[in-house]
Amino acid sequence: MKLAIDAMGGDNAPQVIVEGAMKAIKGFNDIEIILIGDEEKIKPLLTSSERISIIHTNTVITGEDEPVRAVRRKKDASLVLMAKEVKENRADACISAGNTGALMSAGLFHVGRIKGIERPALSPTLPTIDKKGFLLLDVGANVDAKPKHLLQYAIMGSVYVEKVRGVTSPKIGLLNIGSEDGKGNELTKKAFAMLKEAPINFVGNIEARELLEGKADVIVTDGFSGNVALKSIEGTALSLFSMLKQSFLSNLKTKLAAMLMKDRLKELKNQLDYAEYGGAGLFGLSAPVIKAHGSSDGRAIYSAIKQARYMVENNVTETIEKTVATIETLPEEE
Amino acid sequence: MKLAIDAMGGDNAPQVIVEGAMKAIKGFNDIEIILIGDEEKIKPLLTSSERISIIHTNTVITGEDEPVRAVRRKKDASLVLMAKEVKENRADACISAGNTGALMSAGLFHVGRIKGIERPALSPTLPTIDKKGFLLLDVGANVDAKPKHLLQYAIMGSVYVEKVRGVTSPKIGLLNIGSEDGKGNELTKKAFAMLKEAPINFVGNIEARELLEGKADVIVTDGFSGNVALKSIEGTALSLFSMLKQSFLSNLKTKLAAMLMKDRLKELKNQLDYAEYGGAGLFGLSAPVIKAHGSSDGRAIYSAIKQARYMVENNVTETIEKTVATIETLPEEE
Repeated sequence: MKLAIDAMGGDNAPQVIVEGAMKAIKGFNDIEIILIGDEEKIKPLLTSSERISIIHTNTVITGEDEPVRAVRRKKDASLVLMAKEVKENRADACISAGNTGALMSAGLFHVGRIKGIERPALSPTLPTIDKKGFLLLDVGANVDAKPKHLLQYAIMGSVYVEKVRGVTSPKIGLLNIGSEDGKGNELTKKAFAMLKEAPINFVGNIEARELLEGKADVIVTDGFSGNVALKSIEGTALSLFSMLKQSFLSNLKTKLAAMLMKDRLKELKNQLDYAEYGGAGLFGLSAPVIKAHGSSDGRAIYSAIKQARYMVENNVTETIEKTVATIETLPEEE
Repeated sequence: MKLAIDAMGGDNAPQVIVEGAMKAIKGFNDIEIILIGDEEKIKPLLTSSERISIIHTNTVITGEDEPVRAVRRKKDASLVLMAKEVKENRADACISAGNTGALMSAGLFHVGRIKGIERPALSPTLPTIDKKGFLLLDVGANVDAKPKHLLQYAIMGSVYVEKVRGVTSPKIGLLNIGSEDGKGNELTKKAFAMLKEAPINFVGNIEARELLEGKADVIVTDGFSGNVALKSIEGTALSLFSMLKQSFLSNLKTKLAAMLMKDRLKELKNQLDYAEYGGAGLFGLSAPVIKAHGSSDGRAIYSAIKQARYMVENNVTETIEKTVATIETLPEEE
């Protein structure tokens, strides 16, 4: 299979992108990688030329670019050319660590939606205490979601977790402000009713307090609330770690404690590390499109490539399309 | 001034409630406290009878009761009688650590809204890294908010923080999914436009990742997203502390580290402790109504009483009413 990768996206491009690509080429002999970006910068970083090709471009969409406009105007940007490789069937999936909004735009314009899916969902896997992780969707692709969209997210998430993460009959939860049935705002009350009838293993409402406890394999929510949850979790974890670091640096006694705890703290940080789970899938597009974190290192890029490979290999897109087709007859309450 | 307190609300009632009340009576000689609940249980806990009276009732609304129904049917529940003390002008403010939904219902039915405020907002103060804390509203009183409601929250929050916490020209932020102007869903885009025109110190959008960084003194959001943010923060903090505890218990080396870090960890926990900031105000009601945390200890109840006292003393309710009246002429976009 062929994977197109935006070599210029993210904080540490193209170094970490190429590093991850080389690792993936070594690890999987069934993949070919197309790196899109500045050939002069990419070439010196290659450690082998096996199953690697480069599409050269000098144009890059930055984090500051307005997404929709940038995708329209910078037609030869690495991110846009990457999406076009998929659109024109020269690649089976694509990966970028660049501008999230631009990737969503390029995905919609060039890769296109799966038939039956109204809105794609940005879907990262978050860590849990029990180390299994859970898929949260949507975290911002669609900020004014309707109940039907949440139902489609549930189906996409269920297929993904079953096919790619190997979980049988994944537990699907609805992010809500109370655990009892009937709780919530208009959106979640209607979505709850639809999820109960859907061909998935729906386990009911999940409160934000329980997100990291591993009560569900997939949690669906609208893009606004999902974004708030994701960033609240990230922000709290970062704040706590920085406060903890300050505490460890207080005096000689605490510095000694830091030394004694060094390995354990590293373990703890790893446990909370998103990179282990790959990037955030942009589910609902007609081919796997993966958003790697902007601050990804080579290992995170490698995980994202591995994830795209699994999605292609296990026909996630086709399965989503088929499953969604079977629920077209559900009532459309809105 | 007179403060009515639900002696039976919360996990550790009536012990911690009476404990907090006794501490407040000792600390402030300008308050009288009316404790509402089981006289037989309350009396033995009193350490003095000075400025304390008891209204006896055996009926209690529990955490499991359906809020609206419970308030309607259990007319002599401690929480309901407490609200009635305020309604009938025998108390200036009230405090309960009981069922949040029931307190909101009793507040709406019996205490009533401030003229001009359409929806009350549940408003806790959350800790920040710089230890100043910020007021988040709403965290769940109104789960389908309109732009106008967010504007009213901003005004209520601004008045509260200025009057009670002594912050001059408090910075007001809007919880949103991006920091730039123009970001967000329908609600936040419209609210942004209204907040920009309002007589407050509006500092723009705040992302959930930045919530604990102290960028604003007041952050407004709809009750659903606010609830998600609050509980994500709480859940992440609890999960991290429990993971950290496990790490400290790993072996002899780490147990030694725990001993060396003991004081610092306690400090860190205190820094994250909501109790320091009092309870969550139910802002928008025509008298101060404070929701103390269900797991409050005596100190937290004392903080909540102190908070109610400040609100009465500084005429927070009247100032909110006056300020809201001045913006009645704003366009009502919906």
